[in-house]
Amino acid sequence: MSDIKRAYNFNPGPGVLPLEVLQEAQAELLNFKGTGMSVMEISHRSKEFEAVIQTAEADLRELLNIPANYKVMFLQGGATLQFTMLPMNLRPAGASADYIVTGTWSKTAIKEAKKLGTARAVADTEAEGFNSIPASLDLDPQAAYLHFTSNETIHGVEYFSEPTPPDGVPLVCDTSSDFISRPIDITKYALLYAGAQKNAGPSGVTVVIIRDDMLERVPENLPVMLDYKTLAASGSLHNTPPSFAIYMVGLVFKWAKKLGGLEAVEKNNRAKADLVYKTIDQSGGFYRGHAKPEARSLMNIPFRLHSEELEETFAKEAKKENLIGLKGHRSVGGMRASIYNAMDLAGTQELVKFMKEFQKKNG
Amino acid sequence: MSDIKRAYNFNPGPGVLPLEVLQEAQAELLNFKGTGMSVMEISHRSKEFEAVIQTAEADLRELLNIPANYKVMFLQGGATLQFTMLPMNLRPAGASADYIVTGTWSKTAIKEAKKLGTARAVADTEAEGFNSIPASLDLDPQAAYLHFTSNETIHGVEYFSEPTPPDGVPLVCDTSSDFISRPIDITKYALLYAGAQKNAGPSGVTVVIIRDDMLERVPENLPVMLDYKTLAASGSLHNTPPSFAIYMVGLVFKWAKKLGGLEAVEKNNRAKADLVYKTIDQSGGFYRGHAKPEARSLMNIPFRLHSEELEETFAKEAKKENLIGLKGHRSVGGMRASIYNAMDLAGTQELVKFMKEFQKKNG
Repeated sequence: MSDIKRAYNFNPGPGVLPLEVLQEAQAELLNFKGTGMSVMEISHRSKEFEAVIQTAEADLRELLNIPANYKVMFLQGGATLQFTMLPMNLRPAGASADYIVTGTWSKTAIKEAKKLGTARAVADTEAEGFNSIPASLDLDPQAAYLHFTSNETIHGVEYFSEPTPPDGVPLVCDTSSDFISRPIDITKYALLYAGAQKNAGPSGVTVVIIRDDMLERVPENLPVMLDYKTLAASGSLHNTPPSFAIYMVGLVFKWAKKLGGLEAVEKNNRAKADLVYKTIDQSGGFYRGHAKPEARSLMNIPFRLHSEELEETFAKEAKKENLIGLKGHRSVGGMRASIYNAMDLAGTQELVKFMKEFQKKNG
Repeated sequence: MSDIKRAYNFNPGPGVLPLEVLQEAQAELLNFKGTGMSVMEISHRSKEFEAVIQTAEADLRELLNIPANYKVMFLQGGATLQFTMLPMNLRPAGASADYIVTGTWSKTAIKEAKKLGTARAVADTEAEGFNSIPASLDLDPQAAYLHFTSNETIHGVEYFSEPTPPDGVPLVCDTSSDFISRPIDITKYALLYAGAQKNAGPSGVTVVIIRDDMLERVPENLPVMLDYKTLAASGSLHNTPPSFAIYMVGLVFKWAKKLGGLEAVEKNNRAKADLVYKTIDQSGGFYRGHAKPEARSLMNIPFRLHSEELEETFAKEAKKENLIGLKGHRSVGGMRASIYNAMDLAGTQELVKFMKEFQKKNG
């Protein structure tokens, strides 16, 4: 196995996973902890799987410093199902919820919320191309909650300090693409959710962190798989959970702890993002970043070149150099480098080296 | 890896997977088809993953002989989320749906359906302990659909020929625990769904097969992750799918084809079930099967011994012999042997040998 040439994987998610996590999963894929079974073959009610899910939760609590009055759930359906479960569970009948719209994902979140009741956009940066964090918010002091997307994967804009909701309005966050990328103060949040397939593991599992008092809002008689109260009470084991995906996020949490926790992870992420943004800024306009400097994401860096033709060439030549997943989303165009936790400095240096050489040849 | 002692895995699900499927997944876990990435790290929009999901679907279509006017979807949330999605999508406002209640799972299905509208039990065998297939049904000729559970995992009762709905009433089936265990005539069904974690793969993916005309019933403005029409139109790629679980079910489908398809699979399953049922029947009452002989499941075989104490001893000694997962569900008590597709005849022979020896010692 040692002669595999690993790709430099800049996919926006599913994306790069830590090599040592994959190696551990591979080594024990046929025989999990001496059971004579794969982790995929053991019962979700077995003591072995209990250890998997409980350790994953404990490690996540340690990484994010999650207080005891929050529940952690490992659910299915991605962030997109949370767009529905959130208002279904936390917006009382007749109430309205506030949404900050800063990109494709928050726009989709409010769209789903509106299907089931009232939701208001308290700011919307679409007219400017979703390239900033809004300076002011038209907040409703009676809102059921205030929702924001801490990092817009497609547009590459990220919140580095939380918006402040009116007193008593719970703050809710879709943190899918910057989850566990740096320390945050969980006590500011009533609920956070994240599809795992960016920083935390493979696709197929969504982490939901919810403050206990929010569970009191959950209406009676919800469909059981959409009911936070039932799912939290069962420890994510109301029905068969996505065992292998939970096992994998557990390995990733352990890896992040070993790196030194989220302080170390953030330091690494800042160093990587600095490298790429500096290359963009020092290119004399050859590369143009999408987001305004103060809103630049540490995770996803969309940028354009002079022409679509040149962008095609960039993607093609990058691929030849084993730099994968750099084509941007069609709604922004151009390129996008996703540099999640598991992308290391060396891989980022390879990207930057390629960008400079490409400019030299084509500038 | 060759010196691993594989457990004889009789877990009810997640359960045993084909060894060669696990070996293939292990071999390419770090480098999928020469990409330099794990299958977990590639984009769900990449041509490599397109091949994964399209091949999985094509192989399933071949195995089950699925006509062109059916869609195949790979969803999340298990059969339990289907208990909600089914009435939400296929029961028009004000209409009623019929359910045959033959065990814990169909009982849960109707309970969820009742949360969102009207559902009638057209037969209910609970009073007799859920040990049979009902002889007669009180059918509604106007029902939105007739739902049945082809195999009750907990009670071990299985349908070997489909119930016949009134003319024009679509037949819907939860086939989670006997999916791809034998050939069936898909054209009798309007919709089938199955959590993969019994015969088809790991947990975390649910296969839904739906006849095209059913999609016309789907109401406007459903939450997108609960909307069959949107999900079918996107080819299960509306949002990030559970890639690794889909990859694994694809490997299992390929394995089943290599075995000779579902005729060969059924022959094998009948031989295994015969072995266990004969051992029960020839034990002179030492072992007592739960289901009536004509309703006996080929997949899950619950049985009792004379006392709970003896049952405890049975489970403990079986485990020492590397026979895993034989404790029954608390609602039936006693033992349960789940002998899914990937449990081979040799493993079943080990179980039967143990049962006979245990009886000799304790009879």
